[in-house]
Amino acid sequence: MLQKLSDLNHCSKDEFVTALANIFEHSPWVAEAAAGLRPFAGIGALFAAMTTAVDRAPDEARLKLINAHPDLANKTQRASGLTAESSAEQDSVGLDRLSDAEFDAFERANSAYRAKFGFPYIVCVRRHTRDSILRDFERRLPNDAKAEMRTSVAEICRIAALRLDQSVASEDRLPVHGRLSTHVLDTHSGKPAAGISIELTELSDLGASRVVARATTNSDGRTDQPLIGGRPVPIGRYELSFRVGDYFAGRDVPMSDPPFLDRIPLHFAVSDPEGHLHVPLLVTPWSYATYRGS
Amino acid sequence: MLQKLSDLNHCSKDEFVTALANIFEHSPWVAEAAAGLRPFAGIGALFAAMTTAVDRAPDEARLKLINAHPDLANKTQRASGLTAESSAEQDSVGLDRLSDAEFDAFERANSAYRAKFGFPYIVCVRRHTRDSILRDFERRLPNDAKAEMRTSVAEICRIAALRLDQSVASEDRLPVHGRLSTHVLDTHSGKPAAGISIELTELSDLGASRVVARATTNSDGRTDQPLIGGRPVPIGRYELSFRVGDYFAGRDVPMSDPPFLDRIPLHFAVSDPEGHLHVPLLVTPWSYATYRGS
Amino acid sequence: MLQKLSDLNHCSKDEFVTALANIFEHSPWVAEAAAGLRPFAGIGALFAAMTTAVDRAPDEARLKLINAHPDLANKTQRASGLTAESSAEQDSVGLDRLSDAEFDAFERANSAYRAKFGFPYIVCVRRHTRDSILRDFERRLPNDAKAEMRTSVAEICRIAALRLDQSVASEDRLPVHGRLSTHVLDTHSGKPAAGISIELTELSDLGASRVVARATTNSDGRTDQPLIGGRPVPIGRYELSFRVGDYFAGRDVPMSDPPFLDRIPLHFAVSDPEGHLHVPLLVTPWSYATYRGS
Amino acid sequence: MLQKLSDLNHCSKDEFVTALANIFEHSPWVAEAAAGLRPFAGIGALFAAMTTAVDRAPDEARLKLINAHPDLANKTQRASGLTAESSAEQDSVGLDRLSDAEFDAFERANSAYRAKFGFPYIVCVRRHTRDSILRDFERRLPNDAKAEMRTSVAEICRIAALRLDQSVASEDRLPVHGRLSTHVLDTHSGKPAAGISIELTELSDLGASRVVARATTNSDGRTDQPLIGGRPVPIGRYELSFRVGDYFAGRDVPMSDPPFLDRIPLHFAVSDPEGHLHVPLLVTPWSYATYRGS
Repeated sequence: MLQKLSDLNHCSKDEFVTALANIFEHSPWVAEAAAGLRPFAGIGALFAAMTTAVDRAPDEARLKLINAHPDLANKTQRASGLTAESSAEQDSVGLDRLSDAEFDAFERANSAYRAKFGFPYIVCVRRHTRDSILRDFERRLPNDAKAEMRTSVAEICRIAALRLDQSVASEDRLPVHGRLSTHVLDTHSGKPAAGISIELTELSDLGASRVVARATTNSDGRTDQPLIGGRPVPIGRYELSFRVGDYFAGRDVPMSDPPFLDRIPLHFAVSDPEGHLHVPLLVTPWSYATYRGS
Repeated sequence: MLQKLSDLNHCSKDEFVTALANIFEHSPWVAEAAAGLRPFAGIGALFAAMTTAVDRAPDEARLKLINAHPDLANKTQRASGLTAESSAEQDSVGLDRLSDAEFDAFERANSAYRAKFGFPYIVCVRRHTRDSILRDFERRLPNDAKAEMRTSVAEICRIAALRLDQSVASEDRLPVHGRLSTHVLDTHSGKPAAGISIELTELSDLGASRVVARATTNSDGRTDQPLIGGRPVPIGRYELSFRVGDYFAGRDVPMSDPPFLDRIPLHFAVSDPEGHLHVPLLVTPWSYATYRGS
Repeated sequence: MLQKLSDLNHCSKDEFVTALANIFEHSPWVAEAAAGLRPFAGIGALFAAMTTAVDRAPDEARLKLINAHPDLANKTQRASGLTAESSAEQDSVGLDRLSDAEFDAFERANSAYRAKFGFPYIVCVRRHTRDSILRDFERRLPNDAKAEMRTSVAEICRIAALRLDQSVASEDRLPVHGRLSTHVLDTHSGKPAAGISIELTELSDLGASRVVARATTNSDGRTDQPLIGGRPVPIGRYELSFRVGDYFAGRDVPMSDPPFLDRIPLHFAVSDPEGHLHVPLLVTPWSYATYRGS
Repeated sequence: MLQKLSDLNHCSKDEFVTALANIFEHSPWVAEAAAGLRPFAGIGALFAAMTTAVDRAPDEARLKLINAHPDLANKTQRASGLTAESSAEQDSVGLDRLSDAEFDAFERANSAYRAKFGFPYIVCVRRHTRDSILRDFERRLPNDAKAEMRTSVAEICRIAALRLDQSVASEDRLPVHGRLSTHVLDTHSGKPAAGISIELTELSDLGASRVVARATTNSDGRTDQPLIGGRPVPIGRYELSFRVGDYFAGRDVPMSDPPFLDRIPLHFAVSDPEGHLHVPLLVTPWSYATYRGS
């Protein structure tokens, strides 16, 4: 699906519009408006042209753009068909696997929102966890319609940026990716801690927590890949857990029985999906420390 | 129920034996043996006299002492009656509120142990959690009968020490109490953290975790009472949890949204029930550290 | 020299005034004013009576009180005689052992101050180091005379409180003592670090640094006595230094050659002479941490 | 001076030998022996060929190689002329700026060594500080001549590797460079600490300490260049000092007066000149921590 920017710069207008028709949901007119401004120096310039077209469109067009979006987690709509993009996005955050309690909460949110504003609640789900979507909804419901139209368009642009990033290859990149990484330093031996099992769990108030990454530290005490990378780090609360008991036992370090420290859970929240969040662990069998690193 | 040592030193032999008849379960002969050695300079001397009597008794007497003890968590025995002491001890560790899975595990353990050795599995339950009792059983089952008789008598003496500590007032104390304490230092402001909600939970592999203490830090960042004190700190795994998000929010400290740190869980194990275990927290909104203190 | 408050409450007025004549330098009238209010419930009440007498005295009396004080570090006055109290106080901060550069700095400060205000610069030297006295002087010199009279009287009262604390025994205590303590926790072994050599040095910008305390940690990782206690902790900058290389070498802990950590210096300032400042060290052969504790 | 390996692979034998004549001090025969093995796939292969030639040479040749080296810090030899390489190496460690006490210590060491073994004491000075050279001497003096010949040849090879690294450009690199880096994380604000003045000082028991690097942290809390890089990190003791008082004062963080923490000195030793040593600082106005990182 990934197309080269240079190809898009030189193909026919029809081909261009077809390629980018769903960057903005069901709204090929955005691509059409941008087509005439080709060639683009980079994906940043292409994205700017598309968002400018949205900004300059009349209010009715923007409202129609908003209304072109599906409700979140709506089973009827899912059955009747979303765009492939919408479907993949909703699945990524687990909206296709909601518990009944979660599904009810989303339904209530959607209905209340639509009842008040007359258009669907829109949020860029790839930047969120289920809990943070529900919290976002609660915060936005008290707003007035004008503010919500602005917020909806801003979220639509975030959705568009992520879709464009996945559709178009360019030397420059849109700043849509974040990173979550860790590092384990064994301050008992003064060396990186290799071979420690790590598990990253998304915590949830409403539904079940779910493991989102597993890894083992390498010889530098890091994971070969970031725990989350190449995409936004969803806003939400997480547990990062380290099996340090097994590690020290394997090194014949004297310990108490049971070991004072075994599985160490660190709980923290992500608030900036496009940022780099580094959560290291400094550890001995009797002490540990963590901090928001960079 | 608490009797002064001086009274016990000067009462009749019968009164003495009656008072201490169940320090060793259903075995007043131990008190009888000690009665003739009165007066005792302290509770330590009294306890030593009683354990010496047990040590010097013939093997059959010791075996009878072992057999005088009930099975752990045995529902039939509970119905037909334990000594008040045994009942209170088993309740303290939650043996009266076992889940079905836990009850089954205890039943299997008891049966296997009794089948192999011909006498009941005995452990000083006040020094244990449910998980550590099951682990202790697993460790002891492979032993030979001689070793298990020794271990059983040692556990009986631990039970006796705790019963004596609760029955007799003396200026000296038996070393049967441990302590679990904490301290929260706010290294963002350089001061003790006051008003932080703390919860101590006993973790369990088999059954449900259960909260065993709740407290709020005072102006010195400590709790007014130790989290556990005046008794052994049961061997087992614990979570100590601190509501630091509320604390910093209440002090108008700039934080991310959601706050990077909110509820901080520390997981650790207790291995020395009679020791003093201090588990402090050094914390800012962006970092924390803990260690086994003293 | 220490007299019981009860004796002072019941002796003759003359004896009372003689005993407390120099609590306020060369100013027995303060004791005289307080004598009539006897008996005092405690040393706090006695001190309050004396400071109230100073507060209610006419301006000329207070100015005379100020002028009854010697210049700091004045060699001529030292030769001709200070009160024993003044002499001991000045010696305590090392004013009798100034380097030439320090002596010149004090002389300049005194002369400038006296030239501007017409009365001597007064500060409660027991609460200060040489450096902090010079800094205090620099801060106060720009003030107007009225503010400086107030400040001088406040400092005279601080001097008086310390003299009274050393002269009168009472069940209550004046809050004039601070404390500086430390604690070394070996997080490599999870235990207090015993036998570590500690040195406390007063740092100076102007003159030579000087060692003010030496100690060795006991089995609890603490020093038997506070590093500074039973007196104000002088405002100033300090180095607390720990010989951790020797400690870990003595425990056969694997280390690099030369050891990564050997002598650890912690530099910190004291700002509250009457407070309790705790400066602990958490240390492994490869890491350490400190914080302002309580 | 830097020559491409490809040029050395294809030039005449004479040119090759001339270019590498002093890689081994005054010993062009080593280059001669290697010349016939051209072409070399990389600088590693070239170095291996040269050291193999040394290893396979008769003992007399190796002894002559050892004797071709100057005494360390010998003023007479310095006047009469060292090779440019020797001179630059000795200057790098400060051997041209020794205090009288240091010079005497080196003289005594050299004389004792030469008197015992009959050949000069040789050490790769670029891997050392003055203190570590003297300590190395003390350790080696008790050895026997055979062991010292081996050690001397090993040191000569280390010298040669560094000379070769500076003389020959190749895609591969000899593993002769270490790195010393730092990182300051402000755990009060949860961000890297930018704009902190840092000073690295080489500590010395015998002579004066000397500042070897100064830097200011950038927006990532790091220094733009490693504190030491592109060369071995000399074995020795160091102080890394951070001006955190100015940093927090500039951010209007509430502090005591004087500030509890102002200049923070970290003392540590380097033991592995070719390794990467990372010494970070985690700091608030009231606490700090450091560790040997990677």
